[in-house]
Amino acid sequence: MTDGTMQTYALTLNKFLDHAAKWHAQAEVVTSHAGGVTDRIGYAALKARAMRVTAVLAGQGVHAGDRVATLAWNTQAHVEAWYGIMGMGAVCHTLNPRLTAPQLASMLDQSRARILIVSADLAPLAAQIVARTASVAHIFVIDGELPELRAAPPNPAVSALEAALAEAEGETAWGAFEETAPSGLCFTSGTTGKPKGVSYTHRACYLHTLRQLQAGVMGLTSSDAVLVAVPMFHANAWGLPFAAPAVGARLVLPGRLTDGASLARLIQSEGVTMAVGVPTVWLGLVEHLENSGGELPSLTRIMVGGAPMAPALMDRIEQRLGVIVQTSWGMTELSPLGTSAPPADPVRSAATSGRPAIGIDLLLTDAEGVPLAEQRDVEGHLRVRGPSVIERYFGQEEPATDADGWFDTGDLARLDHRGNLYITGRSKDLIKSGGEWINPSEIEALVAALPQVSQAAVIGRPDQKWGERPILLVELAERRSITDHALLQFLSGQVAPWWIPDKVLRVHSMPLGPTGKIDKLKLKAEYGSGPEASDAISRTRAVS
Amino acid sequence: MTDGTMQTYALTLNKFLDHAAKWHAQAEVVTSHAGGVTDRIGYAALKARAMRVTAVLAGQGVHAGDRVATLAWNTQAHVEAWYGIMGMGAVCHTLNPRLTAPQLASMLDQSRARILIVSADLAPLAAQIVARTASVAHIFVIDGELPELRAAPPNPAVSALEAALAEAEGETAWGAFEETAPSGLCFTSGTTGKPKGVSYTHRACYLHTLRQLQAGVMGLTSSDAVLVAVPMFHANAWGLPFAAPAVGARLVLPGRLTDGASLARLIQSEGVTMAVGVPTVWLGLVEHLENSGGELPSLTRIMVGGAPMAPALMDRIEQRLGVIVQTSWGMTELSPLGTSAPPADPVRSAATSGRPAIGIDLLLTDAEGVPLAEQRDVEGHLRVRGPSVIERYFGQEEPATDADGWFDTGDLARLDHRGNLYITGRSKDLIKSGGEWINPSEIEALVAALPQVSQAAVIGRPDQKWGERPILLVELAERRSITDHALLQFLSGQVAPWWIPDKVLRVHSMPLGPTGKIDKLKLKAEYGSGPEASDAISRTRAVS
Repeated sequence: MTDGTMQTYALTLNKFLDHAAKWHAQAEVVTSHAGGVTDRIGYAALKARAMRVTAVLAGQGVHAGDRVATLAWNTQAHVEAWYGIMGMGAVCHTLNPRLTAPQLASMLDQSRARILIVSADLAPLAAQIVARTASVAHIFVIDGELPELRAAPPNPAVSALEAALAEAEGETAWGAFEETAPSGLCFTSGTTGKPKGVSYTHRACYLHTLRQLQAGVMGLTSSDAVLVAVPMFHANAWGLPFAAPAVGARLVLPGRLTDGASLARLIQSEGVTMAVGVPTVWLGLVEHLENSGGELPSLTRIMVGGAPMAPALMDRIEQRLGVIVQTSWGMTELSPLGTSAPPADPVRSAATSGRPAIGIDLLLTDAEGVPLAEQRDVEGHLRVRGPSVIERYFGQEEPATDADGWFDTGDLARLDHRGNLYITGRSKDLIKSGGEWINPSEIEALVAALPQVSQAAVIGRPDQKWGERPILLVELAERRSITDHALLQFLSGQVAPWWIPDKVLRVHSMPLGPTGKIDKLKLKAEYGSGPEASDAISRTRAVS
Repeated sequence: MTDGTMQTYALTLNKFLDHAAKWHAQAEVVTSHAGGVTDRIGYAALKARAMRVTAVLAGQGVHAGDRVATLAWNTQAHVEAWYGIMGMGAVCHTLNPRLTAPQLASMLDQSRARILIVSADLAPLAAQIVARTASVAHIFVIDGELPELRAAPPNPAVSALEAALAEAEGETAWGAFEETAPSGLCFTSGTTGKPKGVSYTHRACYLHTLRQLQAGVMGLTSSDAVLVAVPMFHANAWGLPFAAPAVGARLVLPGRLTDGASLARLIQSEGVTMAVGVPTVWLGLVEHLENSGGELPSLTRIMVGGAPMAPALMDRIEQRLGVIVQTSWGMTELSPLGTSAPPADPVRSAATSGRPAIGIDLLLTDAEGVPLAEQRDVEGHLRVRGPSVIERYFGQEEPATDADGWFDTGDLARLDHRGNLYITGRSKDLIKSGGEWINPSEIEALVAALPQVSQAAVIGRPDQKWGERPILLVELAERRSITDHALLQFLSGQVAPWWIPDKVLRVHSMPLGPTGKIDKLKLKAEYGSGPEASDAISRTRAVS
């Protein structure tokens, strides 16, 4: 006698597009290009084109497991490239055009992608990249006319992907691989260290998608039109190019334009119901509507993540747009969604990043990784576990997890009695002064809430007596001023006396990393060893 | 260089309760007992009790892979038994108390369960069962006082599970097995053939749960209280004992009482938001409210399945209860959900069973299993595929699927242009007359819609000239009458002339199978060889 059993069925990402092509054939992927041109295609036609991409790649000798790179915006052609690459079992290595050519070339040296798919308007950057790496043998251009690429010899071949698709022939292997096969490769932005590659698997992204689709998380349905204002080169665009076809939702892509006017036009013309992106994108949208007076009646929800959300901005977005804002927290290493606030939550707060859905677990530990006895209402080091969480970085032998399988996020966090997550800082930013820890994030949040202040950062500086002491860097709001004394006086009574920074420095423009976060590595390099270097001083200006 | 990868994480069902215990510790499982007593327990406490069940079973020598049987209603103790059994990797064999003792004993002979967990009020049936099988060595009684069991020697030992839980000791193995391990065993009701066992796996049920949780399917969240009016001994209670803890929804269990008055009281007192069960249960609820005048303000949605839904009943439920009715279609072999109508669908129809969500695929074929060239707006034999669909029946060597991996549901169906499924009949019920097929379901649906008719069935009878000819059996509505001539005249023009039954027979009470469907095997045995046997005639009565 043998036990009965259920069917084998590999959780591979091509199945999302297979499902959409069969059951939501006419549901559209819509792309807005510069100049007001809008492209649209149904999922059935998009799948046919994606399979032609697979045929082109196979013709170039690409096999399952090989990396294929993309350097492109949120467009239909990029989605086709994703599915064409992943559908054959190759690995889609997304390159972030906001990084430098040397950084991107070094990533290609690691991934050894022989094929690079490039947006026409990024051809100049591509030329700089391929001049610095021997990896790329062929460049396919999408989203525009074939440009002239001037790279050092031996130049890679350059051709238009559209022309190659027209000539593509033959049956293509599609979805015939294990669910544990790698699907994508994305390097972390590296504002606090050397970029490391996260190699996603089909299974991880498939299960991430199912988590995301829960009614208490993103809750997309076939009635939705979802605007993806988070770039496809950053952490799978939060998984939306998978989630939308999985339910037959309309996928609305803004190309490279995420300014308020462009997004407002797109939301209005496409009847967007849900939008996803970082807070600053929605600030731009609110400001545009405040100036232009338009309305967005179809839009009901916005999910924000990637950066802390200011309470005032959240209120402003909810009130001006008439939407519910769902806060969230995630990381490239988490595929990327970690926690999110449920859409139906009657009590919404910008301070919390919401709760974990089934499939991701959180643990608070001390600095050595020992679980805290009490997991609620105390601050700890945040560790996570789940099928969509990293085990090892690309090319690394040693695991990125501890002995119990937990991944250390590097974040400091607190959980309230309902299980809501509050990110309170980065463990690497902690300042050790007199043997005790100072959390810069708490000071930064207080100072940044002042109307006179646009952005604030606290970093440590070596100190002979205390080991380290904090200094405060501020970028003031336009046409506002405040004295050093008033700034520090404001903190008095709100933080421990020894947390109050020793010094205030004014910066004209806070340095930002490629994902919009304050670049603390750069701040530490410039201001962390003080007294301030003359070249740093030359770039700051006393405005009070 | 090695590829990076994501964490291993087995998709096992204990993780739903682990998640609920940690993140929704106080969310409740509520049980209504006869006599108005209500038990309630938070998920954290329930998990602790389930782990004690595991300890008791381990103490009885139960190992991973062993079957443990339950014969019980929808109660907290039954949920604890489920998780206690499945959490250690043993297999929960649910027995349907509406079957006969010989049927159930033969199932136990197949599963070889040594432990039987029994509701106290089902002890008499348990005694009859164990008298017929040598499998059961120990009976644990739940939900009532320890009864005296009179079985033939050698009697199994009998004890109260609650007493055993109080004495349970030691660490228990919990969740330490592969996701492909079997989790449950459920025999099909067998209205059209010999009962066959469906052996669920953890992976199949886990992925079924994630499909079910999508916003476009059941869309449960932590704000919901879900009433499970479908029995836990039938196809995993449609997966709700998994889905509710997976999101921290309140799980409301009606015990054995699913009459209208009991359900109305429970919905009101527990603020139930969503309810799930077969259409007749909701008819009972509507009739109770029509008589008693009560309201159910918290209830927003009802998912129905397991039997066709009459349009008039659907309207009546929606109007009287002020809810949205979501139709669905499923099978024991599908874990069990196949398709469902989305809650937000503006156009709802009782005739359709909704659409497939990602993770289940449908195919229409001819009688030989060859896919129809056109998949929309034609009738075909319905085949399904997916990770929660059966591959082989319990104890069978040969697969239940065809060469391409599709499972033949035995249903006849049509798909409309939106992908909505219409079940149009059972292929085994088809009647071949003059070399052409007659679909009894189409005739039955027409006749059953007549106000004079309560239930209708069409079966084939051997015929020398045509091979088979249809006869119509009707059970009239109370205090109504209609002549044979009027019945057949009514069909004229609505079906092909040669589809019109040769004969009308009146039955006083249509024989029903254990899940409430008309028992066609019994009808064929009694009336299928005609002229009618005298004992059959004695049980019918001419009422027109």
